[in-house]
Amino acid sequence: MQRFALIGAGFIGAVHAQSLAANPDVDFRFVYDVDRARAEKLAASHGAAAASSLEQLVDASEVDAVLIASSTNKHADHLRLAADAGVAALCEKPIDLDLERARETVEYVEESGITAMVDFNRRFDRDYAELKRTVDAGEIGTVELLQLSSRGPSMPPLEYIAVSGGQMRDQTVHFFDLATWITGLDAVAVYATGSALAEPRVAEYGDVDTSIATVRLANGALVQIDSIRRSGYGYDERIEVFGSEGLVEAKRHPAGQVARYGKGVIVGSGMHAGWFERVQPTYAAALAEFVAALEGGHAPSPSLRDALRAQAIAEAATRSLASGREEPVE
Amino acid sequence: MQRFALIGAGFIGAVHAQSLAANPDVDFRFVYDVDRARAEKLAASHGAAAASSLEQLVDASEVDAVLIASSTNKHADHLRLAADAGVAALCEKPIDLDLERARETVEYVEESGITAMVDFNRRFDRDYAELKRTVDAGEIGTVELLQLSSRGPSMPPLEYIAVSGGQMRDQTVHFFDLATWITGLDAVAVYATGSALAEPRVAEYGDVDTSIATVRLANGALVQIDSIRRSGYGYDERIEVFGSEGLVEAKRHPAGQVARYGKGVIVGSGMHAGWFERVQPTYAAALAEFVAALEGGHAPSPSLRDALRAQAIAEAATRSLASGREEPVE
Amino acid sequence: MQRFALIGAGFIGAVHAQSLAANPDVDFRFVYDVDRARAEKLAASHGAAAASSLEQLVDASEVDAVLIASSTNKHADHLRLAADAGVAALCEKPIDLDLERARETVEYVEESGITAMVDFNRRFDRDYAELKRTVDAGEIGTVELLQLSSRGPSMPPLEYIAVSGGQMRDQTVHFFDLATWITGLDAVAVYATGSALAEPRVAEYGDVDTSIATVRLANGALVQIDSIRRSGYGYDERIEVFGSEGLVEAKRHPAGQVARYGKGVIVGSGMHAGWFERVQPTYAAALAEFVAALEGGHAPSPSLRDALRAQAIAEAATRSLASGREEPVE
Amino acid sequence: MQRFALIGAGFIGAVHAQSLAANPDVDFRFVYDVDRARAEKLAASHGAAAASSLEQLVDASEVDAVLIASSTNKHADHLRLAADAGVAALCEKPIDLDLERARETVEYVEESGITAMVDFNRRFDRDYAELKRTVDAGEIGTVELLQLSSRGPSMPPLEYIAVSGGQMRDQTVHFFDLATWITGLDAVAVYATGSALAEPRVAEYGDVDTSIATVRLANGALVQIDSIRRSGYGYDERIEVFGSEGLVEAKRHPAGQVARYGKGVIVGSGMHAGWFERVQPTYAAALAEFVAALEGGHAPSPSLRDALRAQAIAEAATRSLASGREEPVE
Repeated sequence: MQRFALIGAGFIGAVHAQSLAANPDVDFRFVYDVDRARAEKLAASHGAAAASSLEQLVDASEVDAVLIASSTNKHADHLRLAADAGVAALCEKPIDLDLERARETVEYVEESGITAMVDFNRRFDRDYAELKRTVDAGEIGTVELLQLSSRGPSMPPLEYIAVSGGQMRDQTVHFFDLATWITGLDAVAVYATGSALAEPRVAEYGDVDTSIATVRLANGALVQIDSIRRSGYGYDERIEVFGSEGLVEAKRHPAGQVARYGKGVIVGSGMHAGWFERVQPTYAAALAEFVAALEGGHAPSPSLRDALRAQAIAEAATRSLASGREEPVE
Repeated sequence: MQRFALIGAGFIGAVHAQSLAANPDVDFRFVYDVDRARAEKLAASHGAAAASSLEQLVDASEVDAVLIASSTNKHADHLRLAADAGVAALCEKPIDLDLERARETVEYVEESGITAMVDFNRRFDRDYAELKRTVDAGEIGTVELLQLSSRGPSMPPLEYIAVSGGQMRDQTVHFFDLATWITGLDAVAVYATGSALAEPRVAEYGDVDTSIATVRLANGALVQIDSIRRSGYGYDERIEVFGSEGLVEAKRHPAGQVARYGKGVIVGSGMHAGWFERVQPTYAAALAEFVAALEGGHAPSPSLRDALRAQAIAEAATRSLASGREEPVE
Repeated sequence: MQRFALIGAGFIGAVHAQSLAANPDVDFRFVYDVDRARAEKLAASHGAAAASSLEQLVDASEVDAVLIASSTNKHADHLRLAADAGVAALCEKPIDLDLERARETVEYVEESGITAMVDFNRRFDRDYAELKRTVDAGEIGTVELLQLSSRGPSMPPLEYIAVSGGQMRDQTVHFFDLATWITGLDAVAVYATGSALAEPRVAEYGDVDTSIATVRLANGALVQIDSIRRSGYGYDERIEVFGSEGLVEAKRHPAGQVARYGKGVIVGSGMHAGWFERVQPTYAAALAEFVAALEGGHAPSPSLRDALRAQAIAEAATRSLASGREEPVE
Repeated sequence: MQRFALIGAGFIGAVHAQSLAANPDVDFRFVYDVDRARAEKLAASHGAAAASSLEQLVDASEVDAVLIASSTNKHADHLRLAADAGVAALCEKPIDLDLERARETVEYVEESGITAMVDFNRRFDRDYAELKRTVDAGEIGTVELLQLSSRGPSMPPLEYIAVSGGQMRDQTVHFFDLATWITGLDAVAVYATGSALAEPRVAEYGDVDTSIATVRLANGALVQIDSIRRSGYGYDERIEVFGSEGLVEAKRHPAGQVARYGKGVIVGSGMHAGWFERVQPTYAAALAEFVAALEGGHAPSPSLRDALRAQAIAEAATRSLASGREEPVE
């Protein structure tokens, strides 16, 4: 039984709270939020208590692990807090939008010796995990080409775009991680091109909302990623991995399996309205992996280093958008 | 916030315990089981307490509702206990394998005035609910023909067959409920035929393991249900509703959306290994409906009467298996 | 090179004419039709000549084989004509609507020793042929249950119903053939029930337009066939074969593989408007089998006997519709 | 009735011969081939005659149109022959591998005033035509992103690679045409990158066998094309068109719709073994369009100019493979 505290009682905090309450190996103790009332309400829903302070939250005599679901610009601070307290940490991504600061934080945490994991939860998607098993088992031979699609349902507000770091760092980064994780290969170079088609004012921020990134991996294999901010038809992501012996794909997920047949037309269930419906089961699965690592004494995956690796590709892709040519990944 | 107690800490009890813990409108208080240690273990996993007695469990000053997940032959007793205590009840199906005893129990509970619901959880399947909405909205016109498939993965032990009441009462009954619920029509007559193909010894119990039931509804529409105990390929169920203006189907659910392309072959994710993986999300959804009814003061659905209606069709189908001809539903 | 004559220059005659012209092993010589002008027009389209008489058509010094695509009530006469002339015959189904007259015709043809084949063209559907290969190879073990759907797009005129012989003999008969062909098993008994839902006046002819037939095969396996005259959504047929080791299905065929994704909806290609679009490729394939049999000197399949076998099941099903109980297949 | 002659009696010539014989508006007269015996054999199969010379073939008193299916390096000569004789021409692609020579040929043919069409037969694929109708009807709004996959089953011989003009000109060119045809937009710039993964010796020819091309269209929309010489799993092509109001896709085509369900696995029909099985129906459809244009007196589409347009993109893509940066399309 692992004693947990949760930092952050917003939307994603509430999602984690449900996972913590439902997991039979978790003793869900405390919730902290800068908004104390919000923390109390969430805690009460699941038989936990609101923590009076961050210090109480990471008191190692009271808790074994902390789940960091605070706002992005606080992740690094909260990771250091856990490191100082000697409490394990499962941290929402990214570690920090600034790659240099993220690197320093990872080094700090590694020196502390605590168990830490970044919540790249898509890796725990049932289908992506099966994809990786298939590739690892050699069932498609040597990897030669990947296609990944990342398509959000609607344009985020411009205020969000302004602080997001740009489409590569904010959206495509998850798929840079998936591509390198699935293949076990490092990225060598990346070319990215894009347009501001959904919202022309995005261009004023030096950003794009519709883009294609082409990554070259260490063995010469190629990766195509299309990233779309506003699909208009719902949330959509999918992956194809092509190899010397065949292809394996994780298809897009409609929200249901209902179809109505009319004259000349078959009308099926549409895509999920938002990303959350699509990835919801991955939160409990990622938590389960982290708990299993704590109980079994092994290092959980994905590590904080994995987060840095994906972030470095996003940096190069952002440079390519500006330079108009392939950029090396450093 | 509704205070709940749970009766039964077996497999299905543990499923309900997770739903109770994760539901933010539920205060999960007590667990009771004839095996006290089992109750304590399950209660501890979710911050609840083991009840010392059934009486403590249904003390109306402590709990608002009881979730009955005890063994089948105890359902009627536990419903009466809740009725006597004035505590709401969400009861696993069936009410009782004996239709007469089930009818008496329903009448007893109705007289008590407590809020009660039978856990025909398949109605809360996302796709079946959408199927019903489509039919209710008139999108396929007048219903004329239904097809339902019910296929379990492997043969249950003969000891189970011996006490199950037979394939119609034990397995097909859920699909009799779905057919009448979706169409809003009563069954008039039913013809059933079957064979003991998966396990010939099933015939010694006067039962079948592979069967077809054909139901005639009040408006002349026809229903086909195939029931299979041992599919060999996993758990499989699906529904088609055909009407004067088109067809709507809820397709079978593979466990994933992964496909591997090899020479001359595409190998996709298989079916779920068991029924639980397929219907898991419906438990939380059924509980949410019950809680909403308690909070909103409306009558929850499906009612105990709905359970009786499906059971009456199963009785007629069982008679038809023996008589070899259509039997009226009484 | 086989020299062919065609009897019948109507819709289906024109279909056969295209197959005869395109087949590189066929020398397409003559067309005959009671409407001479129609025969001349069709012949001219494909470099053939109109025959002045039926006698010229089956002159064995001029033609090797005749393709009989005349009206149903002439099939038996034209088969006897070919038998008398010693010319091979590929005959559209049925041999005759009257089972007794069909039996006599088959015996007559068999005694003549000519090569003859009935054009149960669905057996040459690519998917149904693969279904049978899978079953024959034992990949699904022992056959235990089949489901077949036969759904026409729209109600035929009542004048057609009046002379059709009824839904079992006219529509379901093809699926009785497919079920016994795929399994290699004889039908023992059949139960059929139906309603006149699409067109209530169909009942005045003692017929149904929406029906379910349940066939019991020699080994205890069960067959479900639903037959619908007016689907409203296009032409639709499909087959599932379930066995002790798994299931194999030939899915319904939409007319295309195009899908449009809108908000909350995926709109795909609909079903074919009519039966012809669905089964078109089977005509050329059936002809190719017949030509190969002629060239190779082996007996073509399906034989005229196969047509009788399916017709006998349809007779029993027609009796069951009236009697309301299972009827033996004689 | 249009009188046709066919140049070329090889594999693709035989395909065209079948279409010519089956088309009821075509009088199929002559076949010419440098191999006279081959021409005679093919002609005899379909009731046509072998032409003694190219001059006889394009005698305007004998034929209305010529179908050019000769070897690639003869296309330009045969087009000029038809132009000189005043006979209409349907020509296999490309006009000439050398873009300059192709341009001159097109101008020559245009000046002659004959009706001419290039056989970009994929445009006549049922699904691609529906895709275009959907886009043209505005159902997905403004086009923003396209994905096209072009995947051959196996590596062509190196002798073929040596004279093919490279992957962009030989393989990807068809998809450059489809992308501009579907959107009605011109290409502005293209970036291409690739590897020799299937056959490393391809690099010795300055060519690639696995590549990604990214095209920017006139309105800022982006096009992704992946081209693979050796898929290992069969022939595969598909197209997605994403717009401001939704997505429309023409999915990959498996060879059948059969699926076998085993424990944990669903094994479906694989992809077509070769390109021909996939695109076969488009030959007859392209011919029908050409015949309809001749009969109706309108200009057929695609024009010879369309072929030049696609070829120009392939030229720029070939330059980009070498330069490693985006190249303008001229």
